[in-house]
Amino acid sequence: MDYYKPRTEDMRFLLETFGYDEVQALPGNGDYDLDTVTAMLEEGAKVLVNEFLPLNALGDRAGLVFDPDTGDVTMPSGFKKAWKTFCANGLMGLHHSPEYGGSGMPYMPAVLLGEVTSATNKSFSMCPGLSAGLYEAISHHGTEHQKATFLPKLVSGEWSGTMCLTEPQCGTDLGLVSSKATEYEDHYKITGTKIWITFGEHDLCDNIIHLVLARLPGAPEGIKGISCFIVPKVLDDGTRNGIKCTGLEHKMGIKASPTCVMSMEEAEGWLIGEPHRGMRTMFVMMNSARLEVGLEGMALSEAAYQAAVAYARDRRQSRSLDKSKRDLNAKADCILVHPDVRRMLANIKATNEGMRALIAWTAKQSDIAHGHPDEARRNGASDLLELLTPILKSYCTERGFLNISEAMQVCGGAGYTQDWPVEQLMRDERIAMIYEGTNHIQALDLVGRKLPQGGGRLVRAFAGEVTKTIKAHKADERMEPFLGPLKDASKALTAVTMELGAKGMKDPEEVAAVASNYLNIFALTALALVWARMAAKTIDERSPFEVTKLKTARYFMSNVLPEIHSLVSLVKAGKAQMMAFEDEEF
Amino acid sequence: MDYYKPRTEDMRFLLETFGYDEVQALPGNGDYDLDTVTAMLEEGAKVLVNEFLPLNALGDRAGLVFDPDTGDVTMPSGFKKAWKTFCANGLMGLHHSPEYGGSGMPYMPAVLLGEVTSATNKSFSMCPGLSAGLYEAISHHGTEHQKATFLPKLVSGEWSGTMCLTEPQCGTDLGLVSSKATEYEDHYKITGTKIWITFGEHDLCDNIIHLVLARLPGAPEGIKGISCFIVPKVLDDGTRNGIKCTGLEHKMGIKASPTCVMSMEEAEGWLIGEPHRGMRTMFVMMNSARLEVGLEGMALSEAAYQAAVAYARDRRQSRSLDKSKRDLNAKADCILVHPDVRRMLANIKATNEGMRALIAWTAKQSDIAHGHPDEARRNGASDLLELLTPILKSYCTERGFLNISEAMQVCGGAGYTQDWPVEQLMRDERIAMIYEGTNHIQALDLVGRKLPQGGGRLVRAFAGEVTKTIKAHKADERMEPFLGPLKDASKALTAVTMELGAKGMKDPEEVAAVASNYLNIFALTALALVWARMAAKTIDERSPFEVTKLKTARYFMSNVLPEIHSLVSLVKAGKAQMMAFEDEEF
Repeated sequence: MDYYKPRTEDMRFLLETFGYDEVQALPGNGDYDLDTVTAMLEEGAKVLVNEFLPLNALGDRAGLVFDPDTGDVTMPSGFKKAWKTFCANGLMGLHHSPEYGGSGMPYMPAVLLGEVTSATNKSFSMCPGLSAGLYEAISHHGTEHQKATFLPKLVSGEWSGTMCLTEPQCGTDLGLVSSKATEYEDHYKITGTKIWITFGEHDLCDNIIHLVLARLPGAPEGIKGISCFIVPKVLDDGTRNGIKCTGLEHKMGIKASPTCVMSMEEAEGWLIGEPHRGMRTMFVMMNSARLEVGLEGMALSEAAYQAAVAYARDRRQSRSLDKSKRDLNAKADCILVHPDVRRMLANIKATNEGMRALIAWTAKQSDIAHGHPDEARRNGASDLLELLTPILKSYCTERGFLNISEAMQVCGGAGYTQDWPVEQLMRDERIAMIYEGTNHIQALDLVGRKLPQGGGRLVRAFAGEVTKTIKAHKADERMEPFLGPLKDASKALTAVTMELGAKGMKDPEEVAAVASNYLNIFALTALALVWARMAAKTIDERSPFEVTKLKTARYFMSNVLPEIHSLVSLVKAGKAQMMAFEDEEF
Repeated sequence: MDYYKPRTEDMRFLLETFGYDEVQALPGNGDYDLDTVTAMLEEGAKVLVNEFLPLNALGDRAGLVFDPDTGDVTMPSGFKKAWKTFCANGLMGLHHSPEYGGSGMPYMPAVLLGEVTSATNKSFSMCPGLSAGLYEAISHHGTEHQKATFLPKLVSGEWSGTMCLTEPQCGTDLGLVSSKATEYEDHYKITGTKIWITFGEHDLCDNIIHLVLARLPGAPEGIKGISCFIVPKVLDDGTRNGIKCTGLEHKMGIKASPTCVMSMEEAEGWLIGEPHRGMRTMFVMMNSARLEVGLEGMALSEAAYQAAVAYARDRRQSRSLDKSKRDLNAKADCILVHPDVRRMLANIKATNEGMRALIAWTAKQSDIAHGHPDEARRNGASDLLELLTPILKSYCTERGFLNISEAMQVCGGAGYTQDWPVEQLMRDERIAMIYEGTNHIQALDLVGRKLPQGGGRLVRAFAGEVTKTIKAHKADERMEPFLGPLKDASKALTAVTMELGAKGMKDPEEVAAVASNYLNIFALTALALVWARMAAKTIDERSPFEVTKLKTARYFMSNVLPEIHSLVSLVKAGKAQMMAFEDEEF
């Protein structure tokens, strides 16, 4: 398992390149200088590689044990100990407030460690991921009493959190939620069934705190009649609450992550946030989760990449077409010499590093949006954060999946077996395109909410960043191979955005039909932007790291970005041919 | 499991559209008129749906039992009975010669039933698939005695066949084969280890006949020193031969298909074909296998498509953006109304039907190449068959995989669980991009062997078909939406082919670097060709089937074919950026 090495050097480079100094300068972050956070990331990464990685294949093979009588779920052997070590090393509370026991590290570096958590053990990573989401929801919308009760326990890892949205009849369309809450003393009793509840039941913690969507009596129909409740597994007096796991899903991957059916029968729950406005609370949880699901896609792609590189360095098949590269001491050359193997690896490398950069830059916006003293700066950063979140969630999970498939192709038959980690990474990653809002829901969020917001203010903020980058570097001729493609991509994006805006006024189906392809055009342009910035930072090629980074930037511009041409054609094709079919013709 | 219905109506349409009458007119095929073969396909499909389909999920969950002491492999329950029924219904021998007990059906219709075999149970289908390959190899290169000994037993299904090429140190690069054969009486004794041997051991048949690559004493090094041997599991006198399964691979999918490590210790073998020219015999087996692996990709994509359509008709989430399509009797509409769901389904439908058509047309070339009395016709058909085989193998397996992923996306979380067949189809399909020559090996075969052959004769044959189609229909204005895109694609293909030819003279790495993308340009152009022909056939829209077919043709031209733009850019980008990396930079 020593094939995987966290990319801490790249992480430090990203913090420098994308202006971590501005984040450090925010109130309260003074102690977190670049050296300190880098050291913390390295320490944290070591714990994850030591504790989480060895359990990854093991958890996949062993799976979970469900007891239908008690509703108990037993995690695979070793997970409980690893969880304790994770928490004891402060990794649960890295980004959380010191007020509740956290370390208060800014989000920009903390999110980078999230990559390592997913890459080493995605199933496992979902437990702290959900707890962090619940922490966010309670810290934004909870009462002081709720904060004091739940946050310290979530940070210490004694308790964990879940997010109970989906019901059998509703996933994407949460307006159909039918779980019911009725008043009981100073709180509520809730009855209903929730499905797809990640870590809804497990044996890692003393208590599990569920964030549950349900309807109050007389609530309006639809999405505006849903309230949000805190429903603990174990009540204050130590008795079990009326919420129980009644089954596990049998999934293609993340087999060590319990995906539970949760039945609530008069489960006691406490309202969080205002009545009927539960979606606001849930969205706090979902927005950070969406960025981190994008991160998962990149993280698993990185793990697969490293496995594929290890395989390609070791496996010898056929001769290099370039005679000077032949190893005459062996009967065949390492497959890394073959152009197609390099093509596949370079595709993965260039997109992984681009996605990591875009995630870091977006996470920085979160820090500024939440902590900058200047309102205009906060709002500007918030705009970029909101714009880029659905793009990252969708693009990184889709590209991550395709990259893992390409990594498998490098490994040939070996990659299709359990002898190599790639097949598990593929199975584990694939769900990320579906959960936390399917990728098309992200595309609809982008075109339906983010584009029109403030009369196009978010898109203009992004375009401003492109212009700024081009202006800053256009005097340097060496930057032309990076700025030229960025400019072209940005022009193409602006043109389709305008076209979409015009079409959408007349016919929303026209926009929905092309939203997924449009999102990918946006994502590629955003990657071109961060690659141009990374190129500017490394154009003097002072170190081997910078030399490689600059080559990778060139590869992205010439061999990945052209994907945009086909996407533009598809957006132009519009809805006509797909809506021409009658239902029965499929 | 009643979601899957074999596409027999489409199959009949393809036989008509792509000139089955010419195949029927070949010597010996007189009895096989369109009605007869259609009826036989329908009958065969029924058997497969009844016998194979119910065992598909079962086999995946149950897997195989391997006994390390005896080397025995026990198939999941029910497989033996299903195999007997398959053979008893003559499905093993459908295309094989009546001389050996087969039905002698031409390949063009027979291959279409292969789709159903794979779609209903891919693991299972590999047993008859390998037997058919062995049948081909022996009937082309075996002695009369070998034919008489083995072919009837293969057709009856009493015996099955394998293909033993790969060794631990060599997969793609078969020149590294090191298994050794030494003379013994009138035959040989063979020692060595083979891996990845599909159905190398199982309990469906009385005997298993292995086709084994090994080296004779003093054989030249490399690919030109390999001979081919027939090595039966059980010898004439009923004793076990020295070939034994010593392990099974643990794979992501096709879990009911035993993938065996085979150890040979002085196993008795009989030479087939000439010494040192074993690759010729093996290639007979591999070429038909390659076309059929392409077929698998399409077949599993079709099964996934039908599951996704069933899900989309049933699942209700959110409202149609088009108010006139809202079902006011329900709280939400079937997701089939949503443009993005239609986009995904139409992508799969248009490519599946295109691939099926291209496979049928290519299979027709095989019939003509083998059976036409006119040598020029035989040669012309053989050219197209050779050209299209690597294209089909690579494109259909890659596209099939992407399509299944898109089908999973339609099914949302349900598609990620074992409650729906899609996740298994994805796992089962993925290996097809790797085995039978990785997809890049197909691309190298295309650019390195097929393009230069006869000074570009094969490509000219294809271009001639495009020209013929355009000429035949250009007078009909209604055909412009199909002929225009075909002409553009063909022009783009010609341009990159010329460029590749010029570059390849100077630097073979330039060609290898873009071969995979080039193959996809060729595949899309070939699909545009068959779609134009199908459009011509249905342009009068006389039946509901024809109306839908024509709509699908339009969809292909406007919403699938534009993929070519990006591929052309990537071919133009060439090798520069991917070869710029030093090995250690990955």
